[in-house]
Amino acid sequence: MILYDYWRSSSGWRVRTALHFKGIPFERRVINLSPNAGEQHTPEFRALNPSGQVPVLIPDEGARPIAQSMAILAYLEERFPTPPLLPPLDDPWRRARARQLAEIVNSGIQPYQNLAGLTRLKELGVDANAWARECNARGLAALEAASQETEGRFLVGDAPSIADLYLIPQLYSARRWSVDLAPYPTLLRVEATCASLPAFAAAHADAQTDAQRAP
Amino acid sequence: MILYDYWRSSSGWRVRTALHFKGIPFERRVINLSPNAGEQHTPEFRALNPSGQVPVLIPDEGARPIAQSMAILAYLEERFPTPPLLPPLDDPWRRARARQLAEIVNSGIQPYQNLAGLTRLKELGVDANAWARECNARGLAALEAASQETEGRFLVGDAPSIADLYLIPQLYSARRWSVDLAPYPTLLRVEATCASLPAFAAAHADAQTDAQRAP
Repeated sequence: MILYDYWRSSSGWRVRTALHFKGIPFERRVINLSPNAGEQHTPEFRALNPSGQVPVLIPDEGARPIAQSMAILAYLEERFPTPPLLPPLDDPWRRARARQLAEIVNSGIQPYQNLAGLTRLKELGVDANAWARECNARGLAALEAASQETEGRFLVGDAPSIADLYLIPQLYSARRWSVDLAPYPTLLRVEATCASLPAFAAAHADAQTDAQRAP
Repeated sequence: MILYDYWRSSSGWRVRTALHFKGIPFERRVINLSPNAGEQHTPEFRALNPSGQVPVLIPDEGARPIAQSMAILAYLEERFPTPPLLPPLDDPWRRARARQLAEIVNSGIQPYQNLAGLTRLKELGVDANAWARECNARGLAALEAASQETEGRFLVGDAPSIADLYLIPQLYSARRWSVDLAPYPTLLRVEATCASLPAFAAAHADAQTDAQRAP
């Protein structure tokens, strides 16, 4: 498998975690999203994904591309069901709630504060950092509250699920915007549990070959 | 089943379409999202969904709630697989692409132009209508381009899929913002095909009991 990815893409990070967790070998191809590179805008990459975003997965040699983290993760779950990233089919409510928690991040936080949107809002005179902080805080509060009904060692019970894959990169982004995370003790506790797992460590932004060091 | 819903919620509309398409009887309970009602903010409703959004599905009497259209639709597809809203498991690429197209709307357009976000951007001095138009045009262009690889009578082949469920309410929203839809002939053609199906007609915003007539 080939994964088009960028170290700091939270959407790519989710897919990296799933690939490591399921033990699926993959070749990572870097698309440099930094403003002075903008490799997501090339005609070659747009042919793979007209949305001009990573991640893009090429499932097999010569196969056609799949974009959008949710679509890629559903594909991986159906093709490589073990170890699972969803509660079992005979627990449909928890299965649904894992997807609900993931979507609170996927459609409820990340879009509001991704690079392209913030850049445009800045041009329109909005304080993009304050906006990003506000959107993170509102979404993380909903995630903290909704997770109370399912939390165990992870957001949904005692095994990692798709919900945790969305949580970890979002907390990393939230820290970039200096969001106060103290009101979200469940999220922080689950983050610490995830950090102890090799798949989550291998998928971390800072562990990627293209990671830029401070400043 | 009970569906908490509002006539003009594009996310509720997706779920209504699925319920009608699969022939699942449901009781619709209206949560009035209009600014002077704001029923999504009551403690009773927040207990069902801490995100304060419709749709919320209560799958069975006394059952616990599920929110987020993607999570609800996945739940319905697994519990009521016929008629399907995804290409079959033995066509995994098309199955993934149906989800990808749906996500282009779900996380790539709708969040940028939902009521809560636009209200806040207006307070920050942004021309919310222009912003909504811009976000719709960018996302619909990606959807038009990505659908070229799978389109038949519908966005993915000759049967309705989850992708069409996301398309229809988004085009309705786009018209509210006066988006020029001429550059998206595939989307408009598929919309016309969907309009001829009873499930799509029954789910239309204007067909709901709480629909407000012009102006």
